[in-house]
Amino acid sequence: MNATTRLEAALKLALALGDVPARPPRLSAALHDAVFPGGGRVRPHLALAVARACGDTEPALVDACAVAVELCHCASLVHDDLPCFDNADWRRGRPTVHRAHGEHLAVLVGDGLIALAFEVLARAPTLHPERLGGLVRALAIGIGASRGLVAGQAWEAEAKVPLAAYHRAKTGALFEAAAVMAAVACGADERPWRRVAAAVGEAYQIADDLADAVGHSGDLGKPVGQDVAHVRPSAVQTLGVEGAFARIIALRSEAEAALPECAGRGHLVDWLGRVVERLLPAAQGQARCG
Amino acid sequence: MNATTRLEAALKLALALGDVPARPPRLSAALHDAVFPGGGRVRPHLALAVARACGDTEPALVDACAVAVELCHCASLVHDDLPCFDNADWRRGRPTVHRAHGEHLAVLVGDGLIALAFEVLARAPTLHPERLGGLVRALAIGIGASRGLVAGQAWEAEAKVPLAAYHRAKTGALFEAAAVMAAVACGADERPWRRVAAAVGEAYQIADDLADAVGHSGDLGKPVGQDVAHVRPSAVQTLGVEGAFARIIALRSEAEAALPECAGRGHLVDWLGRVVERLLPAAQGQARCG
Repeated sequence: MNATTRLEAALKLALALGDVPARPPRLSAALHDAVFPGGGRVRPHLALAVARACGDTEPALVDACAVAVELCHCASLVHDDLPCFDNADWRRGRPTVHRAHGEHLAVLVGDGLIALAFEVLARAPTLHPERLGGLVRALAIGIGASRGLVAGQAWEAEAKVPLAAYHRAKTGALFEAAAVMAAVACGADERPWRRVAAAVGEAYQIADDLADAVGHSGDLGKPVGQDVAHVRPSAVQTLGVEGAFARIIALRSEAEAALPECAGRGHLVDWLGRVVERLLPAAQGQARCG
Repeated sequence: MNATTRLEAALKLALALGDVPARPPRLSAALHDAVFPGGGRVRPHLALAVARACGDTEPALVDACAVAVELCHCASLVHDDLPCFDNADWRRGRPTVHRAHGEHLAVLVGDGLIALAFEVLARAPTLHPERLGGLVRALAIGIGASRGLVAGQAWEAEAKVPLAAYHRAKTGALFEAAAVMAAVACGADERPWRRVAAAVGEAYQIADDLADAVGHSGDLGKPVGQDVAHVRPSAVQTLGVEGAFARIIALRSEAEAALPECAGRGHLVDWLGRVVERLLPAAQGQARCG
């Protein structure tokens, strides 16, 4: 089974976990729309790639990690799109959850997906239940109010915003959680994977800033120009367009240099290359068109 | 240390957990206002009472359970008060979080408190790390989209609402989580405690419906008449005022009958009596005034 098939199957199973007759039907529909069809699923694919590099010794637990990370990412998108944040009408080329199902259900979908993420972790069959504590902690920190997703969004409400802390919390933290959780699930040392993920996360955030600054909304399936419209700091403002491209290239090298010796190292180098190549031509194409 | 002192100290420690310089300061202030000063803290007190009845053999883990349940309860209040739900301007006699800090921070505070709840569980020192899975699962189900808090709120968006499932999800689920988690943390059988908690939760919800139907907002520190205003089902509509009082008395007997034999049984009977006595005179007073 390839990684995409494996991931989509695991996500479907997770959504079905509590899809009992007792679940309110409108909420069920909204939960589904928040997760399917997905975007790039980059964070869970990073988890699967790290697990493969570490021998993928606990596949059910790794699946749970990948799913949990993606559910939290989807939750953050639903809440970010709300009128009190980006007030976005569409996402992935379709109406956002609050436009399709109402603001109140969108708030609940976000909360419900976070809860489901932890439930999926706790239910995963594993020979190593003692690893659960590390997984729950890593995910909670990755989405949390201190240096996770919530902190990243909250920096946008501050007058003085430290760009590095803001980007690391807003994007890097969940990439780090994905890689760390996969390593912990496989019983590997998490530290080198945290550095790899931090570099990938930063590259991804810069590509996102580039797309927002110079892209076309029709190509991206979501509105552009949001950083300027919402007076948010952006790597493009700090580095310029050329500097931002150069930084993505440098981050690819940083990620490769941080890779530990492991059975699946070659596979992970290939995966990193593909991810960065997808980020770059897309952003370069946008820059040419823009 | 009495239960209130123990609980408030544990909550303060939890909020301080990630209160590093890296946390956005406005978010920190909003998180604090969502948790302090508290309301009745009934759910975490239930957890402590159940733990005491079970011998309180793992106090640090029990504290984490009590804190995690209360943080999730506070998160749900912050989200429930949002304009797209109750649109409440005040809570516990003070401005609601979105009124004081803005809607976007209120959404983030709810998300951040849920994440923190799971982080607290995962960080709790314990001799029994294998119990963590049961705790995470119980909390996730208690707040989740299938039959937890999120499902309870989502029933309000449906045309046909099954009152028992709605009340059990909206209120009972987190009472059940509190009791089950305390029992699991102490290595006790969770099943009888689930029944005890279900009865206490239902009594609490009926008292809340009574207060909303016949109370005064000045006494309660929050708006009344919300069930009628938001066309929500209420036990008062189904049972009438007298019937609702009678049901609370019956539920006290049900809870006592479900209590298992345990060292702290007598203490728990006293605690149940005090809780129900506080619910009843308050509601009766409201009924006389109303």
